[in-house]
Amino acid sequence: MKRVNIGLLGLGNIGSGTYRVLELNRSHIVATSGLDLRVTKILEIDTERDRGFTIAPDVFTQDPEDIFGDPDIDIIIELLGGIEPATSFIVDALNAGKNVVTANKAALAENYDLITEAAARSGARLRYEASVGGGIPLICAITESLCANEFTELLGILNGTTNYILTKMDEDGRAYEDALKEAQKLGFAEADPTADVEGHDVANKLSILMSLVFEKRVHPGDIPTIGITDITQDDIVEAASQGCVIKLLASAFRAGDGVECFVQPTWLNKEHPLADVRNEYNALFLKGNAVGDIMLYGKGAGPFPTASAVLGDVIAIAKGL
Amino acid sequence: MKRVNIGLLGLGNIGSGTYRVLELNRSHIVATSGLDLRVTKILEIDTERDRGFTIAPDVFTQDPEDIFGDPDIDIIIELLGGIEPATSFIVDALNAGKNVVTANKAALAENYDLITEAAARSGARLRYEASVGGGIPLICAITESLCANEFTELLGILNGTTNYILTKMDEDGRAYEDALKEAQKLGFAEADPTADVEGHDVANKLSILMSLVFEKRVHPGDIPTIGITDITQDDIVEAASQGCVIKLLASAFRAGDGVECFVQPTWLNKEHPLADVRNEYNALFLKGNAVGDIMLYGKGAGPFPTASAVLGDVIAIAKGL
Repeated sequence: MKRVNIGLLGLGNIGSGTYRVLELNRSHIVATSGLDLRVTKILEIDTERDRGFTIAPDVFTQDPEDIFGDPDIDIIIELLGGIEPATSFIVDALNAGKNVVTANKAALAENYDLITEAAARSGARLRYEASVGGGIPLICAITESLCANEFTELLGILNGTTNYILTKMDEDGRAYEDALKEAQKLGFAEADPTADVEGHDVANKLSILMSLVFEKRVHPGDIPTIGITDITQDDIVEAASQGCVIKLLASAFRAGDGVECFVQPTWLNKEHPLADVRNEYNALFLKGNAVGDIMLYGKGAGPFPTASAVLGDVIAIAKGL
Repeated sequence: MKRVNIGLLGLGNIGSGTYRVLELNRSHIVATSGLDLRVTKILEIDTERDRGFTIAPDVFTQDPEDIFGDPDIDIIIELLGGIEPATSFIVDALNAGKNVVTANKAALAENYDLITEAAARSGARLRYEASVGGGIPLICAITESLCANEFTELLGILNGTTNYILTKMDEDGRAYEDALKEAQKLGFAEADPTADVEGHDVANKLSILMSLVFEKRVHPGDIPTIGITDITQDDIVEAASQGCVIKLLASAFRAGDGVECFVQPTWLNKEHPLADVRNEYNALFLKGNAVGDIMLYGKGAGPFPTASAVLGDVIAIAKGL
């Protein structure tokens, strides 16, 4: 059995979910990979909150250098979210030679070159499956199994909040504001839903996918982005009358030598595989010149689906240590 | 640029498709992976057939030892199909220290332990993404991104022939024999469709998935298997009247300490994500205890989708050389 020590940055909802899944599936992970994964240090201010499990007090630190400088730590998981200080922490960890796993779409989309170049320079490994599509194995598929394809088209439902709202508007005839309130009540939307409903969260994810699928770096601020706040019941009914549903899509197409990309509410024929992606589910649809049409579907957010992707990345790195 | 030499066993439809995709996407593969992949030897009796591309005559051989014993060959792709001589060739190649990529579900299902143990003993790498679900990145997802999950349920539409027939029976009211004939005319069914319509092809694929998803070795002959030959229009209409479609499913569930598995035509509620998988498409639906519901969808057969998976495996191995 190989012991691998982990430093965890952030023990909020996602961090706690990751810790819990690691404990829940510890024996499964040992049996299938031979890895004894241990979280030995956690960067977190809130050491008192009841998370449903106990952490020894000396595991907590409030100084990230305690983790980056610990020679016994092999992998650092960044689950703070937001652009800063997360970007600096990721780069510092890589510069210290630590392998990094992150779920942070905002930091990656804003600072993709900075972060990937730090990884390349350091020789440490960087993985970020959870940053797009939560638990759906998108990045592994694009960069590994499907990497012999030249892709011509990408369509993604990459935000569970807006997909839940649009599903309720379509299936239950709800008004936008009603559906948003229900999503907030169920925990699918935040108290301030701006980043979701205005499409910025999707633009971050599309920015990351552009690098992986089309080898094009596009800053999220340069992606034309329209959210769903202006969608009305009339729009939904009109689309339905034409055999369509309205989905907030991340779209990208090869056009000449370049690639067009944008985020906007889109009429989608009900026959399209993405049209059946309902409620909080996400999916990515790709056309490759060898594989044809591919769709990958699952939960794009939440502590446990995110933990699934984070721990998959951790195990992939740990196997190579 | 890293030169990697490949020995190819079999230049039939799938072998030719793989060769063509490699040429078609050569510059893309060089640009994204830095790999110069060259097929330097091909085991094939039929050297005269017009495949739409030219192979230098000295590339062909009829002696597999020419390939296994060639010190310049790094990776061997097995695309002969069938249990023998493919199994012996795979094992001989591994014993010779060659990395092996295969699409051969029959050989793997029949001789899984023999083949995987030969790989483990030799230290060479063995990959077989194309053996289940054609171009769909299933195996990469299960063994890598999703490997921190304990899976509780597996449902698969893993045969394009039978899914095409059932779709035509459902959507166009066709009789089984009519739909089968159309599938044969379109190249979705073979002249002798037994292995497909009796469910044996699906049983082979389920056998492989049982090892990967549930760590249980089940010989395909031990999987209770019912095909679609007895399905009538009356069955389809009755299912539809209850809001269901009939699909030929590979199913597996945890039950107590064990895992039940079987292949049979199954009533599936139209709300289920697999119910919308139409025509020749395949999909795998999994429940993981962290990720929740996941579905991976695409083309499960055909020279180009299979080539996509084969070359993804080749590139993964070549990167590590």
